[in-house]
Amino acid sequence: MTSPTPGGDTVLRIEDLHGSLRDPVLDAMNFLNEVVSRYPEAISFAPGRPYDPLLDPAVITDCLTAWTDHLRRDQGLSEPQISTLLMQYGPTAGIIREPIARSLAEDEGIHVPAEAIVVTVGAQEGMLLVLRALCAGPDDVLLAPSPCYVGISGAARLLDIPLFPVPEGEHGIDAADVADAARRARAQGLRPRALYLVPDFANPSGVCMTVPARRELLAAAGEEGLLILEDNPYGMFRADAESTRPTLKALDTDRRVIYLGSLAKTGFPGARVGYVVADQRVEGPGGSTLLADQLAKVKSMTTVNTPALSQAVIGGLLVRNGFRMRTASLAAAAFYRENIARLLDALDRHFPEPERTARGIDWNRPEGGFFVVLSVPFDADERALERSAGRHQVLWTPMSPFYIGGGGVRRLRLSCSAVPPELVDEGVRRFAEFVAEAESPAVPHSMATSISAVGRG
Amino acid sequence: MTSPTPGGDTVLRIEDLHGSLRDPVLDAMNFLNEVVSRYPEAISFAPGRPYDPLLDPAVITDCLTAWTDHLRRDQGLSEPQISTLLMQYGPTAGIIREPIARSLAEDEGIHVPAEAIVVTVGAQEGMLLVLRALCAGPDDVLLAPSPCYVGISGAARLLDIPLFPVPEGEHGIDAADVADAARRARAQGLRPRALYLVPDFANPSGVCMTVPARRELLAAAGEEGLLILEDNPYGMFRADAESTRPTLKALDTDRRVIYLGSLAKTGFPGARVGYVVADQRVEGPGGSTLLADQLAKVKSMTTVNTPALSQAVIGGLLVRNGFRMRTASLAAAAFYRENIARLLDALDRHFPEPERTARGIDWNRPEGGFFVVLSVPFDADERALERSAGRHQVLWTPMSPFYIGGGGVRRLRLSCSAVPPELVDEGVRRFAEFVAEAESPAVPHSMATSISAVGRG
Repeated sequence: MTSPTPGGDTVLRIEDLHGSLRDPVLDAMNFLNEVVSRYPEAISFAPGRPYDPLLDPAVITDCLTAWTDHLRRDQGLSEPQISTLLMQYGPTAGIIREPIARSLAEDEGIHVPAEAIVVTVGAQEGMLLVLRALCAGPDDVLLAPSPCYVGISGAARLLDIPLFPVPEGEHGIDAADVADAARRARAQGLRPRALYLVPDFANPSGVCMTVPARRELLAAAGEEGLLILEDNPYGMFRADAESTRPTLKALDTDRRVIYLGSLAKTGFPGARVGYVVADQRVEGPGGSTLLADQLAKVKSMTTVNTPALSQAVIGGLLVRNGFRMRTASLAAAAFYRENIARLLDALDRHFPEPERTARGIDWNRPEGGFFVVLSVPFDADERALERSAGRHQVLWTPMSPFYIGGGGVRRLRLSCSAVPPELVDEGVRRFAEFVAEAESPAVPHSMATSISAVGRG
Repeated sequence: MTSPTPGGDTVLRIEDLHGSLRDPVLDAMNFLNEVVSRYPEAISFAPGRPYDPLLDPAVITDCLTAWTDHLRRDQGLSEPQISTLLMQYGPTAGIIREPIARSLAEDEGIHVPAEAIVVTVGAQEGMLLVLRALCAGPDDVLLAPSPCYVGISGAARLLDIPLFPVPEGEHGIDAADVADAARRARAQGLRPRALYLVPDFANPSGVCMTVPARRELLAAAGEEGLLILEDNPYGMFRADAESTRPTLKALDTDRRVIYLGSLAKTGFPGARVGYVVADQRVEGPGGSTLLADQLAKVKSMTTVNTPALSQAVIGGLLVRNGFRMRTASLAAAAFYRENIARLLDALDRHFPEPERTARGIDWNRPEGGFFVVLSVPFDADERALERSAGRHQVLWTPMSPFYIGGGGVRRLRLSCSAVPPELVDEGVRRFAEFVAEAESPAVPHSMATSISAVGRG
């Protein structure tokens, strides 16, 4: 495993390390966090991060104060107690479960006890905890849409948990396809443990499930004995602000849905606060616990607890906003709504009909969220991205790493979330230039070096 | 896996979940974070957390200001750049690698490039990342001292990585025992990937390796082709402040040591900032990387990045203290030094010779750190702890969960770190009362309910 020569420099071989480190999906998100800095001058439709000017660092101290005021005034805590809560180790499952439970009730009509919530270091840690708890052995698999968010496929890869794909259509995944996938998995001797999905404005595809499709999915999951792992980072960002759709968890009468929440988009990513709602009962020799209790046990061995500091700031944010993050996010929602419309308009302008259909260029028109997916008549791979960045100063995300078991080679994702409105048109103009060059067979492929850029963050 | 009845309440069975959830070691740390609150009136020698009055919440805003001042003044960043750094997603490996590298050089004589560091959500996440990266398959094992910190055994259990025990003596583990364990593992067809240990004031035993033993261990690891995973949360807290011992990493000329650092004790636990130093080269088809780069890839799927907020506060703490945490920790070190002396004195007073030897009571006398281990003439198990807490209002930690594969049933750990100095003597008096009752066969065992309390936090 290491160099055999005593006294020599220790050298490891990648093939001796865990297999996930040779899996492209693990490079993907890591790279995304750095790709913007590689091309600081480019217009970037790559990352799904919030728009910088929506984030105000004054919120940090304001919210810290709001939280300590809340502890002092509403909870009656003394100064030493407040200090301990901010500065010490804390309960594994978190110290802001109560305000999160209240905001779930206010914002989503999800009514769960605080005890069913585990506060996590972003939704990413939540995925890891749920996968670890649910999957016990080599036959356990996770059903997931294809294309699928790389955070879940990467976490599954870390734990050697195979994904079993469910094809995703224009309106998300279909209950019949889920039932079919579960049956096929079982026919192969596998145990499908849960279905992961983002029903509202999926990452990467931007698609949104209809309410009837949600109900059908819940029914199918009940019939197949499947849990559902619902990830909802974008639900607040609907183009038509009037017509929110209920989450699967809000429709869930059987406690079949494990809900992954994020405060990265409604709060801010630098706090890294997410949470899991897991109100399922777990029966064991010692009696009945909640699945949340089991997830907390896993968490005690991943991060011990979510930083008290982050929880205090987000707790203060919830308190300050009367536990209504939907109301608190109206300005952000308006921004993203306008920016995705701006992006779709610019695409229409720079790829006019009827030429675009003739050229084999097409895209979807999500009703909200951050992402638009384009089909293009060339391989939208890392080499193409390198040319786009280097020669046209415009960044986007290849879709193929999101597909389970291959696919999506001629598709790419444009994110509107982090692009200044005044640059959207210029960005799409550059992108159109890049596409025109890429679809021409005369383009040299020589400038290629390795690059990749996908993911949520 | 779930209840088969559609429309019914979803019920999971613990035996269908991951095996780690039925492993006592996973309950252990989780419980510790809550046990103090179960017996708020008891004197607690259980948790290894810092002494509350040493933690001042004013440090949070002071350090945040110090960090933003540093970015503005020393790094020349603009206000929007500072905002982005505080509020957004950031590089997976962290944004305070440079100040950590400087403090490692100042405090420990460890000279590594910032690129060899990954900032983690506490040392706990560092353990998870290293174990995941190093262990590729079912034959890969970790060598670890017995007794061993439950954070590492729990993380290994999550990843289904077996531990191979190395017996720990009065001065820690012995190079010959490590070589012997490595050979026995290989003879069983296993691949020993690394040795985990805490050379300075181990948790739970409090023992400290001599400098010659450290050099012998490094030589043995070189001969056996073993990596060493050095965990150092307590190195700053030596009873004799003048005679610090070099860390294994400082003595490491072959890049054989992966170093786990924590700022929970020198900073504060509520930030949850730790780090891994992994300057080993990894060779792969794409060329040479650092092991730190590979750990960052794993981290992108566990927590994406350590909260920028926590990193900013700890970065400010490092800047404010001129990157010398040893100097910054002098007051804390003096407190712990005096408190462990106070604890040892109280034990001598309440368990006088020659009776104590005749009774089979004994303890070690660590040269620093937080922990003292006692041998007692009865089973120091969860039932005994429940009696101690309920009837004598004094808490301690059973040792048996720390032993790999059993042992330590008649041993317990006393931590001096969180006990107010004025309560140490009274706490030991109560503890002596409990011991006197426990060693008498007339004690009823009826009050027992499940309780456990171990771990670092």
